[in-house]
Amino acid sequence: MEASFQKLLAISRELALLGYAQGVLGWDEQVNMPPTGAPARAEAGAYLAQKAHEILSSPQVGELLEKLSGWEKARDPHSFEGACIRRMRRNYEKAVKIPADLVAEMSRASSEGFQTWLAARQEQSFRLFAPKLERLVDLQRQAAQALGFRSEPYDALLDLFEEGTYAALVEEVCQKLEEGLMPLVHEVAQRLDRVDDSFLRGSFSKEAQWQLNLEALDFIGFDRQKGRLDQSAHPFTSGFYPGDVRLTTRFGDSLTSALFSTLHEGGHGLYEQGLPEAWWGTPVGEAASLGMHESQSRLWENVVGRSRPFWERFYPRVIHYFPELKDRSVEDFYRAVNRVEMSLIRVEADELTYNLHIFLRFRLERQMINGQLEVKDLPEVWNEAVKATWGRPPAHDGEGVLQDVHWSGTSMGYFPSYTFGNIYSLQLVEAARKDEEVARGMDEGNFQPLGRWMREHIHQKAGLYSGLELLEKVTGRGPDPQPYLAYLRAKYQEIYGF
Amino acid sequence: MEASFQKLLAISRELALLGYAQGVLGWDEQVNMPPTGAPARAEAGAYLAQKAHEILSSPQVGELLEKLSGWEKARDPHSFEGACIRRMRRNYEKAVKIPADLVAEMSRASSEGFQTWLAARQEQSFRLFAPKLERLVDLQRQAAQALGFRSEPYDALLDLFEEGTYAALVEEVCQKLEEGLMPLVHEVAQRLDRVDDSFLRGSFSKEAQWQLNLEALDFIGFDRQKGRLDQSAHPFTSGFYPGDVRLTTRFGDSLTSALFSTLHEGGHGLYEQGLPEAWWGTPVGEAASLGMHESQSRLWENVVGRSRPFWERFYPRVIHYFPELKDRSVEDFYRAVNRVEMSLIRVEADELTYNLHIFLRFRLERQMINGQLEVKDLPEVWNEAVKATWGRPPAHDGEGVLQDVHWSGTSMGYFPSYTFGNIYSLQLVEAARKDEEVARGMDEGNFQPLGRWMREHIHQKAGLYSGLELLEKVTGRGPDPQPYLAYLRAKYQEIYGF
Repeated sequence: MEASFQKLLAISRELALLGYAQGVLGWDEQVNMPPTGAPARAEAGAYLAQKAHEILSSPQVGELLEKLSGWEKARDPHSFEGACIRRMRRNYEKAVKIPADLVAEMSRASSEGFQTWLAARQEQSFRLFAPKLERLVDLQRQAAQALGFRSEPYDALLDLFEEGTYAALVEEVCQKLEEGLMPLVHEVAQRLDRVDDSFLRGSFSKEAQWQLNLEALDFIGFDRQKGRLDQSAHPFTSGFYPGDVRLTTRFGDSLTSALFSTLHEGGHGLYEQGLPEAWWGTPVGEAASLGMHESQSRLWENVVGRSRPFWERFYPRVIHYFPELKDRSVEDFYRAVNRVEMSLIRVEADELTYNLHIFLRFRLERQMINGQLEVKDLPEVWNEAVKATWGRPPAHDGEGVLQDVHWSGTSMGYFPSYTFGNIYSLQLVEAARKDEEVARGMDEGNFQPLGRWMREHIHQKAGLYSGLELLEKVTGRGPDPQPYLAYLRAKYQEIYGF
Repeated sequence: MEASFQKLLAISRELALLGYAQGVLGWDEQVNMPPTGAPARAEAGAYLAQKAHEILSSPQVGELLEKLSGWEKARDPHSFEGACIRRMRRNYEKAVKIPADLVAEMSRASSEGFQTWLAARQEQSFRLFAPKLERLVDLQRQAAQALGFRSEPYDALLDLFEEGTYAALVEEVCQKLEEGLMPLVHEVAQRLDRVDDSFLRGSFSKEAQWQLNLEALDFIGFDRQKGRLDQSAHPFTSGFYPGDVRLTTRFGDSLTSALFSTLHEGGHGLYEQGLPEAWWGTPVGEAASLGMHESQSRLWENVVGRSRPFWERFYPRVIHYFPELKDRSVEDFYRAVNRVEMSLIRVEADELTYNLHIFLRFRLERQMINGQLEVKDLPEVWNEAVKATWGRPPAHDGEGVLQDVHWSGTSMGYFPSYTFGNIYSLQLVEAARKDEEVARGMDEGNFQPLGRWMREHIHQKAGLYSGLELLEKVTGRGPDPQPYLAYLRAKYQEIYGF
């Protein structure tokens, strides 16, 4: 048995090495590559992915898992061995259930979908994109059928991104969150002019912003000796290895745009740096789930980075780099970075209204995958829903249904991870604050104890648990929007005075 | 037959994709990677190399080549098909002749050798490095035996790096070059104080140097839309794809250190950008040889970059960025960048004495591989030879026998490529100048016609010919040091006045 398990680990390592190479190629593509390098890059990426899929779905893996099933049952499912086998089985089953030609077809449709989406968004015309989206929805429905599901096809896709979730659960969680959120949104919407962030807009030295961003990473405990920060059009994090974690950020039209991008990616980066090096390349050597990953990024971006204690500590550094703002108080900054704008664009949304964007996308993609909404009707339904919630419809498809990249590929089922991340983050903070040092630190602007707590309870557990399991283990319950709602309520009531 | 050939191309493409991924990983390692990323990077690189070796040396390749041998004979060996089969056969035979455990052993010995060399150089102690070097020499002798050779084991290694060369030929070429060179060196050595480059030393803005380097790349025709320039500890060029060519440079203690590094790598880069995109991934989709590659880098670094017409054109840009040097004339710059220093360090050597370093290394590694020189005697022999040629022995092993990285791995046989590159470059210039536009351009500081000529006659031929074959085709003869000697003689007689 031990030999079979070692063989399984060797296969996992091969997959990790192929994934590692893909990761480096992908990072370089977004950070350094000239556009004329694209043909070779796309081909090399596809080749490595195909090799990995061949290895993962080989009969040998099935036989090893079969052999090891008794051995596995005799073990704690959250022991290293138990979790390795379980995670490998999950990956293997997903890989073999989807036929090779469907995989290839999805890959082609994604490439074409992405290119068409770029053009359609440019033209602000959904009509251009509709045929590709129809094809993508169809292929994802086929994948859902092949994978099998709990109650409805969309469940299969949700489970791909956040293990153990399903549409009814997501709807229940979103509803609870929405019920608590909407009254707050309405209160704030009547007082939008109470917060001013105009002093953050204008022309600020990029060199100084860059230094400030590096200091922010140091401040939250990201180890720049074991990683780096670069620029890219869309910020992202690549954890190649715990000792080599790459973050990117981008400058925006506000002084703090890059800062919050950096803090967000820094949160992802802390997770990647905190994974146990010894487990690298094993099935459990990675994060528990996407939702859990998002909990860490939202934690450092919002719960920490938009908190008053953070600004009390960080304010002198901001003024050091931007002395022209020295007449602005800590309080001015704290309020400005928490300004609610009710943007129709998800990636520009403030903390309060961000999840409204997710509710909309989740519900529409659920209906499309389950066959209750036709692609051709999507823009109309989208625009009506936006009008109902935000009080105004999008000016055009570019700031409406075409704004996100996700539907141009095969990522339906991904959006809810963002909301889970938000919800998890406050559940985790609630648990972490039971540690007095963490609570005192957070109140005083010293976030090292919080970082250590996350490292011990979340990062170091790597993939021993699924995201939902780890949440349950650490907080004693499943996804519960109440701590998140309580946090938002307290914060925005105080800032907007209602 | 056509089907077998297509299959061969498909295998070549797989090898190219694996090599491509290794290339990106290697570039990133030297440009971006934090040192703590090394363990995963080394493992991933070794894994990709092993996969490529498995594919190249598989019986299937042997069978395809066997099947295609008649087809090949019916074709021009320099047609696309003929050259593809010939190049694939050469690679295949080298791959299968060296046993897998010898390959693995060489890889391990290289890694250990490199680490030990770093430490030994730091300590300036050859004794520390000697056991590793003994092992490396032994393994390379085994490889030479396995590969087979013309007259002596070292021939096998030379042929690895520059197809068709062998020790007796290299010695003959080096002797001719040396005979012409030494009288020049002696003349110049008596007049070293006639040229002053002290004004190039000091503290110059790196930002301004960077801009100047970018302009130099533009000036020689390197397309920065299809590549980029970065910094690394050791300058190098990675041609991932004709549309994605990466150069690196480094700042030195002279204003022009980075500039000449950049021009050197720019020459390599022009070759890589000039390879036909349609042939990428086929056996002929790469440069003719290392020596031919080096001819292009030395061409742009020295023959162009250290010429008077180059400085007449480039001088205003230098003064634009460094107005503090405006009292210095074009002539001051031209003389300064051609100053002979007789450095004992190869990588710091001037154009005149550079090849003396190669003669020394070539002769010593030849003796070691052929069993005529024991590793333990190496430093003594080295130091005596240096004293005889340079007039003074190295102060310690660090500036002597330990100075180069090559012997810490399995690169014996590589050094002569540098001298071939120098010799080729002037033979090519002689041929190119028969084109009037090229000659006039070079005299007037317009190097575009020269660049176009090289693209047409060298770069676009890619791997249809070996380096020696291409040289013969383009210049009508084999390696001939006379044009190079005539060039050096005219240049240094004028500068040093003898």
